[in-house]
Amino acid sequence: MREVAIIGIGMMKWGELWEKSLRDLAVEAALNCIADAGTDRIDSISIGCMSGGLFNGQEHLASMIPDYLGLKHTPAMRVESACASGGLAVRTAYMEIASGMADYALAIGVEKMTDVSGGEATYGLATAADQDYEAFNGINFPGLYALMATAHMHRYGTTREQLADVAVKNHRNGNLNPNAQFPALMTREQVMSSVMVAAPLRLMDCSPITDGAAALLLTTVEEAKRLGKHPLVVISGIGLATDTIALCQRKDILKMPAVEIAAQRAFKMAGKTIRDINFAEVHDCFTISEIMIMESLGIVEPGQGGPATSAGLTALDGKFPINTSGGLKSKGHPVGATGVAQIYEVVTQLRGDAGKRQLANAKVGLTQNMGGSGGSCVIHILEVKS
Amino acid sequence: MREVAIIGIGMMKWGELWEKSLRDLAVEAALNCIADAGTDRIDSISIGCMSGGLFNGQEHLASMIPDYLGLKHTPAMRVESACASGGLAVRTAYMEIASGMADYALAIGVEKMTDVSGGEATYGLATAADQDYEAFNGINFPGLYALMATAHMHRYGTTREQLADVAVKNHRNGNLNPNAQFPALMTREQVMSSVMVAAPLRLMDCSPITDGAAALLLTTVEEAKRLGKHPLVVISGIGLATDTIALCQRKDILKMPAVEIAAQRAFKMAGKTIRDINFAEVHDCFTISEIMIMESLGIVEPGQGGPATSAGLTALDGKFPINTSGGLKSKGHPVGATGVAQIYEVVTQLRGDAGKRQLANAKVGLTQNMGGSGGSCVIHILEVKS
Repeated sequence: MREVAIIGIGMMKWGELWEKSLRDLAVEAALNCIADAGTDRIDSISIGCMSGGLFNGQEHLASMIPDYLGLKHTPAMRVESACASGGLAVRTAYMEIASGMADYALAIGVEKMTDVSGGEATYGLATAADQDYEAFNGINFPGLYALMATAHMHRYGTTREQLADVAVKNHRNGNLNPNAQFPALMTREQVMSSVMVAAPLRLMDCSPITDGAAALLLTTVEEAKRLGKHPLVVISGIGLATDTIALCQRKDILKMPAVEIAAQRAFKMAGKTIRDINFAEVHDCFTISEIMIMESLGIVEPGQGGPATSAGLTALDGKFPINTSGGLKSKGHPVGATGVAQIYEVVTQLRGDAGKRQLANAKVGLTQNMGGSGGSCVIHILEVKS
Repeated sequence: MREVAIIGIGMMKWGELWEKSLRDLAVEAALNCIADAGTDRIDSISIGCMSGGLFNGQEHLASMIPDYLGLKHTPAMRVESACASGGLAVRTAYMEIASGMADYALAIGVEKMTDVSGGEATYGLATAADQDYEAFNGINFPGLYALMATAHMHRYGTTREQLADVAVKNHRNGNLNPNAQFPALMTREQVMSSVMVAAPLRLMDCSPITDGAAALLLTTVEEAKRLGKHPLVVISGIGLATDTIALCQRKDILKMPAVEIAAQRAFKMAGKTIRDINFAEVHDCFTISEIMIMESLGIVEPGQGGPATSAGLTALDGKFPINTSGGLKSKGHPVGATGVAQIYEVVTQLRGDAGKRQLANAKVGLTQNMGGSGGSCVIHILEVKS
């Protein structure tokens, strides 16, 4: 298997981008990535998008996006695993390089969510749950994560304040990220007095509806060295795992086996443990998610995610910074783009280019991208090789 | 790059399968494949499906299908390129093996199209065209292929009878395939008197709306030998190419560059030319498609597809049999399953298991699976290694 490096990254400021279409977003991120890489050699394109069909009446992005990027005829595919689609697109690009099918592979994540109403967007997102046994009966993702939050509070004593502190911390980071959709600072009181969505989760516990895209250019480590790329950022581990699509079929709704198993696989491949990781971007689709992911990754013991957050463990100046980009909460969550943008942030930190949110010790980073209520998870481990 | 073999195949009789859901279909095909392979070792699953979102309100198949197959936690992904989604799923499984990410990879193609009305299905399919510049203006696939058929008749003198002969031949083959949705024999007169859909294409020129699935199990050639698989069927070439999504943006609407280029790539990888191929399954979504694909693959010169069909070149007993399975026309076209089922048929022929439709000389076969009006194309070359 050939070793793989990331030599280009691109995105744009995310938000409600009325003036940009699905294809505009994908092309803009890709062109920014090509400019960053300093090469436009592309042998293969993988596109992560959750639901162009439901959000835009547009499938077949693997034809449309290369075409509008000026790269028609290039081999391309769209991959989907709900909100983990972006991470999957990067894993697919990795396989293109590792297998020798391509020498340069572009991974794009994109979602254009504001072409439909909020209700239609929520319906679209709920197709990541089990349609026949969950969504059809009226529950959607705020409701599913509210069940987890309630159980977590009951079993571990996690508090309303601790949930709020996840949002406060991520908005503090997003405030330093020029690409964030909602960079505004947020107080614990503002989070706790925001409108109720699904008790105990309030509006400021939920990631937003976002238009956005991100892109990465991958090649072999050998080729990246030949191009003189320094620092050389490599993908040293990837883990992909799945679980029951329906939350009700898990033995314990406070465990996320897909996250645990994907992490084990990525750690094994990279020859590392969680103690070797300096920082992470994780899938904080709701505040409770970040807490449960911290526990599933082994950053803290089960039940300690809330207290650790309030104690500052995961802050920019904490021992294990999480979501330096602002996370899904502040940066935004164009679902298919999120997994790609998580890696964009880790590469930015590893390169030392994160400006006011730059970490002092960013040598090995991890991204955790998740679909549904934990029905799928993709984890990448990235590090500086030289 | 590791060499890849196909050691298991599975499908079921296709049709309007009211009693089977999306998940039932995928699981049934996968279990049939596992039974055929004689092993249930599966390290990775790739699922081709065009639009679970629009047809079933269900995305995130990469979580749901492994779960219902009893394989939760297995790495899985869904891939999509409109009607070429199935071929892409096989290519993805190939990469899993070739790269060393997996030793056993299951490729599933599935589509459940009859949960929605005919109008909704036609809308869903039209999302494979350019939504903003084609579908929004009212044209859909029968209309787009009707434009090609009209131009082909005008430039080359292709006749109404020649179009009909594609359908007659494919129904004659499908009549010998127990899995075909519409195995009824069809006369030229019946095709030519069927209801008009988009002039000059009539109902019997169009592939149907179908529920169905198919699955393949891939492993390394080394592992297949260890298991004593004989005959040993290998994938010796794969080609993937894209083109403009909108038909109106092609320089010549009677050329299919994605097909030509995908074929060149597959031939190069396999070290073969079209003259080394004994038979093919091609994407006859409309009768005109099969004629144009014959020309794009170089089986005949441009303009000769119609006359060659009427002269029997592509019949079961012809020099270059095409769509021995009955093709999309007679076997049915559950869009995400088609590309996988094409390979199912080629493997069946290569193994000598095709019963009454068995070819005498089936050593090297080709599959051509296409998205939209030719915006994407995946080609596989398969052969018996021992």
